[in-house]
Amino acid sequence: MTDTLPDTHRRLVSTVTKDGEIRLSLQTVPLPVPGDDEVLVRVEATPINPSDLGVLLALTEGSAFSAVDGGASAPLTPAVQRALGARAGIDLPVGNEGAGRVVAAGSSEAAQALVGKTVALAGGGFYAQYRKVPAAACMIVPDGTSAEEAASSYVNPLTALGMVGTLKREGYKAIVHTAAASNLGQMLVKLCAADGIALVNVVRSQAQAELLRGLGAEHVVDMTAEDFVPKLIDAIAATDAYLAFDAVGGGKLAGQILAAMEQAALRTQKADGPYGSRQMKQVYVYGGLSTAPTEFNRGFGMRWRMGGWLLTYFLEDVGADEAKALRDRVARELKTTFASKYTQRISLDEALDPAIIAAYGKRATGEKYLILPQS
Amino acid sequence: MTDTLPDTHRRLVSTVTKDGEIRLSLQTVPLPVPGDDEVLVRVEATPINPSDLGVLLALTEGSAFSAVDGGASAPLTPAVQRALGARAGIDLPVGNEGAGRVVAAGSSEAAQALVGKTVALAGGGFYAQYRKVPAAACMIVPDGTSAEEAASSYVNPLTALGMVGTLKREGYKAIVHTAAASNLGQMLVKLCAADGIALVNVVRSQAQAELLRGLGAEHVVDMTAEDFVPKLIDAIAATDAYLAFDAVGGGKLAGQILAAMEQAALRTQKADGPYGSRQMKQVYVYGGLSTAPTEFNRGFGMRWRMGGWLLTYFLEDVGADEAKALRDRVARELKTTFASKYTQRISLDEALDPAIIAAYGKRATGEKYLILPQS
Repeated sequence: MTDTLPDTHRRLVSTVTKDGEIRLSLQTVPLPVPGDDEVLVRVEATPINPSDLGVLLALTEGSAFSAVDGGASAPLTPAVQRALGARAGIDLPVGNEGAGRVVAAGSSEAAQALVGKTVALAGGGFYAQYRKVPAAACMIVPDGTSAEEAASSYVNPLTALGMVGTLKREGYKAIVHTAAASNLGQMLVKLCAADGIALVNVVRSQAQAELLRGLGAEHVVDMTAEDFVPKLIDAIAATDAYLAFDAVGGGKLAGQILAAMEQAALRTQKADGPYGSRQMKQVYVYGGLSTAPTEFNRGFGMRWRMGGWLLTYFLEDVGADEAKALRDRVARELKTTFASKYTQRISLDEALDPAIIAAYGKRATGEKYLILPQS
Repeated sequence: MTDTLPDTHRRLVSTVTKDGEIRLSLQTVPLPVPGDDEVLVRVEATPINPSDLGVLLALTEGSAFSAVDGGASAPLTPAVQRALGARAGIDLPVGNEGAGRVVAAGSSEAAQALVGKTVALAGGGFYAQYRKVPAAACMIVPDGTSAEEAASSYVNPLTALGMVGTLKREGYKAIVHTAAASNLGQMLVKLCAADGIALVNVVRSQAQAELLRGLGAEHVVDMTAEDFVPKLIDAIAATDAYLAFDAVGGGKLAGQILAAMEQAALRTQKADGPYGSRQMKQVYVYGGLSTAPTEFNRGFGMRWRMGGWLLTYFLEDVGADEAKALRDRVARELKTTFASKYTQRISLDEALDPAIIAAYGKRATGEKYLILPQS
């Protein structure tokens, strides 16, 4: 033990109650004691990612929350109650990733070597003042990089690297990305530029288009513009982008992308009888910004695929060595390719304020919240 | 040359006219002369498959046709005109497969060896009295098997074998099949029984369910029944059928199957946080019995895939040797596993009769038409 540590600490939990509500609260719990191969991290910064909001808000609008004794709560629809039945009555810790200083360590050499270091890691439960983690899960943050700068070292950087890795593994040449002005999307613009991979960015406003062009993005298509579809076809034809990562999920967008890919392919090849082009076209749905049903008309031949994409599964598929190589790259490029921008910094208490829940619950592109659990 | 042959023969063509109609007609054309490695087949029997109807009727209802001088025609909607613009003004021969006797051959040994044999083959243009084909494309029909019995030796048998082959290549254990009372579906019941593969048959009526049970099918689920979804989940859980082949395409069925697979998987494994089960779930859409949009709610975790499936691409993927092995198996089992039943036999002239077009255009499960071009 190296610091004088408190006996207890506070952590945020999200609970689907048995009487049909979602409740956010702060619990005061005993400080965990690391085992031989574990360390205790004093969490200094942890972001609110879209992937956290699913667990945190239980598929409920942020604007539905009101203050209750010790936190905030919102009623659940019967459909959500059914869908989340497995969570009922369980206090779920939240927060997929974060960074902070190692303040205690188990007896092993690996754990002891981390004492005093600033580390970044993923694994859940980071909306808390302290977090006990395996020593092997820690990425040491390079000197001169702060915990705030390292807080988002996993989800967005590895997702961007996972998209490029998927492109390489599956033999595609370029990527279509939706909701492309997100923090992740901005990273992907920088990463693809660094790695020489063409990227078609689909955004939802002219302001977002300007933002990405300012980062050097070459192909930006505004889905709210009249000429969205022809511009998308042009961009796909110019880049051979037959692999898409869609953060939206619901509605017609995924199908529009497959249809645009087909039209782009038919510019350089004849249709195979009634079966369309022979070009394989893949859309991976990796997010659910829209909870509407996914809908499409299959007007894109027979060589198409749609499917789910999850970072965890990608990292398992590539194996431990490749995953480590990707994490090492993130550490090296935290201040450049993988730099995150936060628009708001909040405390754990503020994370339970209904007005603030309503704000971060909007998932507005360009808005990004960072929780500072020590403040 | 071994027979006294006519100078001309008749063939059926389907034409999207430049003034926005689809027209079916019979053309009298010169008898083709085989090159060195080719043979001339006198076509005796050729089926109307769903995959033929797409080309033949140009996405138009069979009931929309009326008699015109020399054939039948129907008006095309503007959407179909746009979709089929590449066909405009071109007389397309129709008929994916057929069987008949080799009546002339080129000089090569392989071609000469086929003279007088009954052969079956695929390749298009079989709604004709004669067809010139490469000798290498011919499957010699075993002695004692008629041209009628061999007419459907490709599309349905190889599709059924392709489904089982896809299961093996992708590591699945059992199959869900929709519109399962079709000729193809009946073959698949027999093939899966022979090969020891569990099959979940989704049908559209109790009569179809009885038909398949009569063939020995164990798992049959009626999608028009009140308890369709729970029964489907039970059948998937009982068989581990996480691979589906869907002939319907439009509507909610493909998504319902993925959702039922997820519920079946969650009976034996915990959900992976908010991301659902870790079980991969695949639906291949291989037909388009419904032209409605495909629609689903993504309530099936992140490990799912949907995509197109086409026999041609499967055969290319497995390679020539494996494809030949599959064709050899079809030849051996034409009277058993791969026997087809026809409910109607028609001439080329009758194929242009509006009342008959309306009947075969319905794609009614259990109805199957065979064209006898010599009658």
